[in-house]
Amino acid sequence: MKLLRRSILMLGLGLTSFVASADTDTIKTRWADVKVDTVASGLNHPWGLAFLGDGRMLVTERAGNLRIVAADGSVGEPISGLPEIKVRGQGGLFDLRLSPNFSNDNLIYFSYSEPETAGSDITSTAVARARLENNKLHDVKVIFSQQPKVMGGRHYGGRLAFSANGDFLFIGLGDHGHRQDDVQKLDNHTGKLVRIHPDGSVPKSNPFVNQADAKPEIWSYGHRNIQGMDIQPTTGQLWTVEHGPQGGDEVNMPKAGLNYGWPVITHGEQYGGGEVGIGFKKDGMEQPIWHWTPSIAVSGVAFYQGSQFPQWQGNLLATGLKGQQVARLEVNGDHIIHQETLNLKRRIREVKVSPDGSIYLLTDEPKGAILRLSAVK
Amino acid sequence: MKLLRRSILMLGLGLTSFVASADTDTIKTRWADVKVDTVASGLNHPWGLAFLGDGRMLVTERAGNLRIVAADGSVGEPISGLPEIKVRGQGGLFDLRLSPNFSNDNLIYFSYSEPETAGSDITSTAVARARLENNKLHDVKVIFSQQPKVMGGRHYGGRLAFSANGDFLFIGLGDHGHRQDDVQKLDNHTGKLVRIHPDGSVPKSNPFVNQADAKPEIWSYGHRNIQGMDIQPTTGQLWTVEHGPQGGDEVNMPKAGLNYGWPVITHGEQYGGGEVGIGFKKDGMEQPIWHWTPSIAVSGVAFYQGSQFPQWQGNLLATGLKGQQVARLEVNGDHIIHQETLNLKRRIREVKVSPDGSIYLLTDEPKGAILRLSAVK
Ligand SMILES: [Ca+2]
Ligand SMILES: [Ca+2]
Repeated sequence: MKLLRRSILMLGLGLTSFVASADTDTIKTRWADVKVDTVASGLNHPWGLAFLGDGRMLVTERAGNLRIVAADGSVGEPISGLPEIKVRGQGGLFDLRLSPNFSNDNLIYFSYSEPETAGSDITSTAVARARLENNKLHDVKVIFSQQPKVMGGRHYGGRLAFSANGDFLFIGLGDHGHRQDDVQKLDNHTGKLVRIHPDGSVPKSNPFVNQADAKPEIWSYGHRNIQGMDIQPTTGQLWTVEHGPQGGDEVNMPKAGLNYGWPVITHGEQYGGGEVGIGFKKDGMEQPIWHWTPSIAVSGVAFYQGSQFPQWQGNLLATGLKGQQVARLEVNGDHIIHQETLNLKRRIREVKVSPDGSIYLLTDEPKGAILRLSAVK
Repeated sequence: MKLLRRSILMLGLGLTSFVASADTDTIKTRWADVKVDTVASGLNHPWGLAFLGDGRMLVTERAGNLRIVAADGSVGEPISGLPEIKVRGQGGLFDLRLSPNFSNDNLIYFSYSEPETAGSDITSTAVARARLENNKLHDVKVIFSQQPKVMGGRHYGGRLAFSANGDFLFIGLGDHGHRQDDVQKLDNHTGKLVRIHPDGSVPKSNPFVNQADAKPEIWSYGHRNIQGMDIQPTTGQLWTVEHGPQGGDEVNMPKAGLNYGWPVITHGEQYGGGEVGIGFKKDGMEQPIWHWTPSIAVSGVAFYQGSQFPQWQGNLLATGLKGQQVARLEVNGDHIIHQETLNLKRRIREVKVSPDGSIYLLTDEPKGAILRLSAVK
């Protein structure tokens, strides 16, 4: 398609030569020339992706559908049996993860904007699990529902991650955009990172289980809008990314019970602009490990492991919506020591490393695509 | 001058309007619009700068002169009494620092390429101290001389820094370019960071004073070419920057007795390229806090403190030669959490924060300048 368009353009300019290779599909980076292929297209704001292990992928569309994409890129019919999802603003169907025991139990976990009652605009982020069989969900069970539900359709968070041992499910949440006053309080799930067991029960080891008036599901707080999460393979530690207000997109490594500062401190502009409100730092509040200012509108993250890009082992890949990029962050211990930017020229929602070491991206577009990054041999 | 040139250019293009403000002299940054003024010019590869406290500055030229620059920018005659300096390749007069007790003792410390015998091309980096009086140096004493001296005119290091209490002088050194085999051995000063007392004696607390065959002046080793050094005001910790081979310029926080990896590990290309030699990491060798890949040819560093740029408190400013920039690095504890690049469009050798909080830069040019960065009000 790209070749064709370019040829037409060149003819239009009175040129006759034919361009044999589309160099726009290759990104030169420090350690590798990266080939960008389109695996599938026509997905309505794809948001989450899981590899099914047999070449097929399970993909969510924010517009409210869950589909299987075959290895050849053909997109299946919507999987039936989803609960009611409120598709409005930033709300819709968000992330999905396979059960750590998927090959035996066929369970999947997914997050979405859940209306208070059928059709209501009062929503919050919920997580359900269900058994996937014959393109249909069975035994759907809501295992978490963010409290309180509120009007408005922004800052749902919605990213999911299982702990390395599979015993815990982390759920990244947001502040709804207009409920910042709740974020520093522990009696609600607004602007929180939550940790539950996969059956929805609350782990006894959660930091606030014995604190009166605190929601026991809370793992950490002071988050604005968690958009990406992944477990670091070498340490088992959860890393998250979240959106800043205007600049100040953050990378964090949330620890039990700690406060990540929103809306009191930020490296973005809302509180740190010309006048300087409370500013960047405050005792008792954690600093980010890294921030992007100006913002890239950071979305998904994944630690790289694989044979396609041997120099990238252990790097954290972070995607940007507005930033239209993959940021390759070199990690040493608990900090970043270098950043390289891969310019994709499309809004990128999520990144996953496939079993063969190639990297899959979802584009945030009404006719969104699955892209694959692999090394030019 | 810039205005004039632009006007002439515009007239040449048949334009008649007059540009009232030269916006090329302002750099827009996240937190401030930065005005760039030329304080002085006509300096032959200026390398080091110290504020004398009365508005005057002491400046080294790599070409072998030490001069006083008045507050109005007029450049004084060369100060007499310097020892013999071998000006060749990267060699010449390097850094200078005032004695911590300068207002009483009038002592200065400076580093330079010292020939083995008069006129010899066999050189190494030496540090001398002298009393400055009436544009003349008195009682010049060489307090350190890097061993061994070798042929070749590259990778001298040469940056100096006093510890916060003034009891210790750090001297950053290099590997001479072709003496990498010496860098991991402790019986020489090649590729080392050295710590001495200001009188040249060896501190009893140095890490290798009791190790047979080790040079007792060594503080840390495995450095390729230390180009910038500053003490972090809030912690008293020394931070250094050094050049990588081809990419992999580093920020380090050298601790006593530790190994910073050169030439065994690097984030640059020499050992990490297509083939991957030993690579990025090795047990017993420290990782950099930050690296620039591709290289900016990092030169000077200074921690910012001052009233001109209130949002930059505690930031580490690092200059680039090839990179023609000031990199503003936001520091949290012992790591970098954000970088912003100020494009100066000239090779920058060194950065110093002046008593009024404006930032002075030296350009690395045969007719080099002192530039001042201040906030546009
Ligand atoms: Ca934060
Ligand atoms: Ca190193």
